[in-house]
Amino acid sequence: MKMFKSDNVSGVHPKILNAIQEANIGHESPYGADTYSKRAIDIIKDLFQKDVDVYFTLLGTAANVIGLSGILRPFEAVICTETAHINTDECGTFENFSGSKILYTPEDDGKLKIENIKKFLTHPDDEHRVQPRIISISQTTETGTLYSVEEIKEIADFAHSNNMYLHLDGARLANAIIALDSSFKEMIADTGVDLLSFGGTKNGMMIGEAIVSFNKEISKNFKYYRKQGMQLLSKMRFVSCQFIPYLEDGVWRECATNANEMGSYLKERLRECKSVKVQEGFKTNMIFANMDKKIMDNLQDEFGFYIIDEKTNLVRLVTSFDTEKEDIDKFIKAIKEME
Amino acid sequence: MKMFKSDNVSGVHPKILNAIQEANIGHESPYGADTYSKRAIDIIKDLFQKDVDVYFTLLGTAANVIGLSGILRPFEAVICTETAHINTDECGTFENFSGSKILYTPEDDGKLKIENIKKFLTHPDDEHRVQPRIISISQTTETGTLYSVEEIKEIADFAHSNNMYLHLDGARLANAIIALDSSFKEMIADTGVDLLSFGGTKNGMMIGEAIVSFNKEISKNFKYYRKQGMQLLSKMRFVSCQFIPYLEDGVWRECATNANEMGSYLKERLRECKSVKVQEGFKTNMIFANMDKKIMDNLQDEFGFYIIDEKTNLVRLVTSFDTEKEDIDKFIKAIKEME
Amino acid sequence: MKMFKSDNVSGVHPKILNAIQEANIGHESPYGADTYSKRAIDIIKDLFQKDVDVYFTLLGTAANVIGLSGILRPFEAVICTETAHINTDECGTFENFSGSKILYTPEDDGKLKIENIKKFLTHPDDEHRVQPRIISISQTTETGTLYSVEEIKEIADFAHSNNMYLHLDGARLANAIIALDSSFKEMIADTGVDLLSFGGTKNGMMIGEAIVSFNKEISKNFKYYRKQGMQLLSKMRFVSCQFIPYLEDGVWRECATNANEMGSYLKERLRECKSVKVQEGFKTNMIFANMDKKIMDNLQDEFGFYIIDEKTNLVRLVTSFDTEKEDIDKFIKAIKEME
Amino acid sequence: MKMFKSDNVSGVHPKILNAIQEANIGHESPYGADTYSKRAIDIIKDLFQKDVDVYFTLLGTAANVIGLSGILRPFEAVICTETAHINTDECGTFENFSGSKILYTPEDDGKLKIENIKKFLTHPDDEHRVQPRIISISQTTETGTLYSVEEIKEIADFAHSNNMYLHLDGARLANAIIALDSSFKEMIADTGVDLLSFGGTKNGMMIGEAIVSFNKEISKNFKYYRKQGMQLLSKMRFVSCQFIPYLEDGVWRECATNANEMGSYLKERLRECKSVKVQEGFKTNMIFANMDKKIMDNLQDEFGFYIIDEKTNLVRLVTSFDTEKEDIDKFIKAIKEME
Repeated sequence: MKMFKSDNVSGVHPKILNAIQEANIGHESPYGADTYSKRAIDIIKDLFQKDVDVYFTLLGTAANVIGLSGILRPFEAVICTETAHINTDECGTFENFSGSKILYTPEDDGKLKIENIKKFLTHPDDEHRVQPRIISISQTTETGTLYSVEEIKEIADFAHSNNMYLHLDGARLANAIIALDSSFKEMIADTGVDLLSFGGTKNGMMIGEAIVSFNKEISKNFKYYRKQGMQLLSKMRFVSCQFIPYLEDGVWRECATNANEMGSYLKERLRECKSVKVQEGFKTNMIFANMDKKIMDNLQDEFGFYIIDEKTNLVRLVTSFDTEKEDIDKFIKAIKEME
Repeated sequence: MKMFKSDNVSGVHPKILNAIQEANIGHESPYGADTYSKRAIDIIKDLFQKDVDVYFTLLGTAANVIGLSGILRPFEAVICTETAHINTDECGTFENFSGSKILYTPEDDGKLKIENIKKFLTHPDDEHRVQPRIISISQTTETGTLYSVEEIKEIADFAHSNNMYLHLDGARLANAIIALDSSFKEMIADTGVDLLSFGGTKNGMMIGEAIVSFNKEISKNFKYYRKQGMQLLSKMRFVSCQFIPYLEDGVWRECATNANEMGSYLKERLRECKSVKVQEGFKTNMIFANMDKKIMDNLQDEFGFYIIDEKTNLVRLVTSFDTEKEDIDKFIKAIKEME
Repeated sequence: MKMFKSDNVSGVHPKILNAIQEANIGHESPYGADTYSKRAIDIIKDLFQKDVDVYFTLLGTAANVIGLSGILRPFEAVICTETAHINTDECGTFENFSGSKILYTPEDDGKLKIENIKKFLTHPDDEHRVQPRIISISQTTETGTLYSVEEIKEIADFAHSNNMYLHLDGARLANAIIALDSSFKEMIADTGVDLLSFGGTKNGMMIGEAIVSFNKEISKNFKYYRKQGMQLLSKMRFVSCQFIPYLEDGVWRECATNANEMGSYLKERLRECKSVKVQEGFKTNMIFANMDKKIMDNLQDEFGFYIIDEKTNLVRLVTSFDTEKEDIDKFIKAIKEME
Repeated sequence: MKMFKSDNVSGVHPKILNAIQEANIGHESPYGADTYSKRAIDIIKDLFQKDVDVYFTLLGTAANVIGLSGILRPFEAVICTETAHINTDECGTFENFSGSKILYTPEDDGKLKIENIKKFLTHPDDEHRVQPRIISISQTTETGTLYSVEEIKEIADFAHSNNMYLHLDGARLANAIIALDSSFKEMIADTGVDLLSFGGTKNGMMIGEAIVSFNKEISKNFKYYRKQGMQLLSKMRFVSCQFIPYLEDGVWRECATNANEMGSYLKERLRECKSVKVQEGFKTNMIFANMDKKIMDNLQDEFGFYIIDEKTNLVRLVTSFDTEKEDIDKFIKAIKEME
């Protein structure tokens, strides 16, 4: 039974699993000093065509929190939207680990607007106020929308001209790149992103997250923060090896393409249901729709979607790298039978 | 020269200074085990007519942060308005000391509305979300408005029926009590406030802050948090002794009454100025007004008020326990000369 | 090429890898709400014959730090030996995550002595001092020695009669159980250990650590601490599934038995080498020996052992679940050729 | 009644109290932007004949913790003796505020030895270990001994040649300077101390502590750390003004001289008592002696000394700026009457 709860309910792409099996040969130096980690780092450098710093982590939350905390002093803050994953879904881990503050502002179509960032920049050098030092955006955003490449560049430029850095939470970065027909290099390296949480777990990997720093000055002590962030796995080869087929064999593209296509198909089929009002404008694997309350309540357990707003019966449906048309057809059939 | 910047630019009421001098006799046990501290605690218990726990601190920020942190586990959060002192003016000290998160929401006339609190209560028992455990309000609010006694009670009841506590930041509590013709007992103890930051420094004391807990269960470990919060002064008698005349000799009432009356007088006189638009509805010692930009810029240095909003030329003017009519008259004269 | 650096340079037991592959079927609820996690927890309850609380983590450091921090308030401390992993090898993660203090004391044959614990118990209820609340020991210790079951019970009793808890860092617990011919139940549940870091990664697992609490009162909020400790993997099934063959199919016993036997064989063979002085008294897979400096330096790269003390040429050699006699023979041959 | 418990049981020197009274004139800018703070900073710069950075704090613990934390990243550590105030008497505040670790080593005659520091420097650049960055010593030490000026210089040189800084906890610095016939400049500025906790509260001030940084690079963000450390008093003039007579009128010298002389007198008189064995070698105001148990127990309440070791009946007796010969005579008389 496939669920629409999130793209982390799915398992692992066969090529990823295969890489893990193949990494299980003999002894390797621990804590990332293994041959797989070195190769994976080289591949990531190639991907961005830049001599980036790479630190594998085990969780996306960890990639976010460690990267941000590694830059900030406790009196420096990060600016993001109210709906940002770091603000709402990480149980205050950023505040707890960094001792710093999140300055959040309402989102606009899921995105952070420069005019809303400005209101936090009014007290430079004032010790009564936290000092903003990082802007954090998510691509794909938590509400399923996308920043254009130009919008990312604009925020990066604004950050840099205000003595700040730009962090991008890329838990669903692959889906965004496919949806916008862009590339890792164009969307991240060329726009001026300073710090990337490079997510793969939601796109067919088992445990595949990395902090990628485009500025060696900010990441010079990240290895200590990763250790204190409890992400320095002894048998790191089994994490890093996953990135090799993910990037070299195009697993990332295959997975994100299927997830996005199934998102489109789901949207299309939901439009057929008279009890459902599909929210338009979403291009990746996250679909939002208002459903008839009774149908929603009846089908939630079986199809495992997430209710965003009980008042408007708004649900979030997420397709995965392994979602198939018949999974969606089954869902549509169940809806129609109850209409 | 008197300033209108804040009520902490003034000095100390003579009776407070006198108490400090009189406490300088012989040796006393350090760290609050002295006779002055014991007596001050007894007076505070009498004031609230309750067997409260009292911990003197040196800063109002410390009273807020230590009390809140002493209750919360790091995954538990405090809810307040965006403009709350703990959220904006304490340089992230709460997050840094507690490792917890502040959930802030836009204010409504400076106040926290129950409907805005509710949006944070949607994920009980969900480890991905911080768990709200304290509601924090300020009386007088940071924008100069006041909660009625009934409103405080309502929020306290809401807190308690949702397994939360109510904290009240009373940096300007005395001014509120005078303005509403209430009492410490009626406004705090009888409404159900669990935790009070009892401020005196802004009302004629030199260093006079205390954490007052109305629930011994939540404060049983506060002594350790005060120590870790770096507020356990060795010669504590010189802080605690200030509370004796403050409460026994009515210094609190005298100071707050004068500050509020001077606030009224300032408002009255500002209404005479054609270049000034006084904001109405403020009853304590904080006055807000929109000024002519040129006059505002010219007079800011001399009269030391605070510009709240550069766009609307909104300024905050605060009167003190020692503000006199002639201080205000001088200000009005200066305005009129420039009109 | 096999190394003697640590038991985390080896790969994964085939049955563990097989379990991971078999867990890759369809969709499962994320964050530990999957069927594999539930089953693994049941197996662990059976193992200890107690209704324990189990929280899987990704790192042993995390099992230690989250369990300890989940119990302690920031003014409460943990007592351990100077050589304890939490004190020396975790980059201050405990202090960073908990905000608490480690009280360390010299070890005696690698172990913590009750008389050394007592010196930290002299200031109960004194807010100037951290208050010890947990005693932490490691089994196998970091220096390769073992506590007898009776010794563990004695420390547990001492802890409980002094209002403290006993934590046991079991990164190499399986080796200890085999060496002492004991059982998980006898050594941990029956002695009175309150909190166990249940390690499997060093004994043939890929990522296999768990916090096991024998006292539901202390662990009631652990789920939040695990989340904040960045250990709540979305695809948790791939971690928890490893515990199933580990415990049900006796993988733990097979792996630890081989590692220990290879430890004995290594010791035996090293005794043949005139340039080596084997430290006696070690019964698990950690062997200590003083080597001729030139030979030590020449062979370190190839055989990857760890130099403990440059002055005395003391090295640590660790055998793994997959160490074979020929690996050891090759090492001995290399030594002899240089003698 | 005078006590021998600590030099913080005494009150305040009259000239200090006078300065506080005189500072109570009109309005002053808050948070240290007042005229008294500026003047006190200038005086301190003169004292050290160096353009130091000065941050007034309210507690000595705060001076220690904020200065150290302002320098360290969380993976960096401070080295000190086991008996250091930051290690034993501050309730883990350093760990809590900084998130860093203290590496403590047994003291040798109360002092930190370079050979004991070296054992912590064995793992540079190793992310599994905290990285020592500061050496912290106390002068006068917690056990009443003194570093010579040469010893301080030697440790400073060692620190600097190992990429570390030297912090000196000067809670009883004045007593040391008098005892060694040195000066602030010679003992601190000229030896190479990087960071000083400049204590005055134990030497006749009411609330008189300051962080003094001799290296502007390390202290460039201290103002934020002081704010987060809850030491930025709004009416700061009443703290800073105390330093003016303390340094300009020689109050520091007068107070420390008396305390030290009374220490000598106490030692001399105790030698007369057959039931007391005075520890020799102490030159300041802290005296250690082994007493007859019965006498010790009987007199503790009245004379308020501190029992260091119950087994050897070792007590600590501290004289103050205001201790008089008759206070000591009374104590000696009481002992003799019980002998």
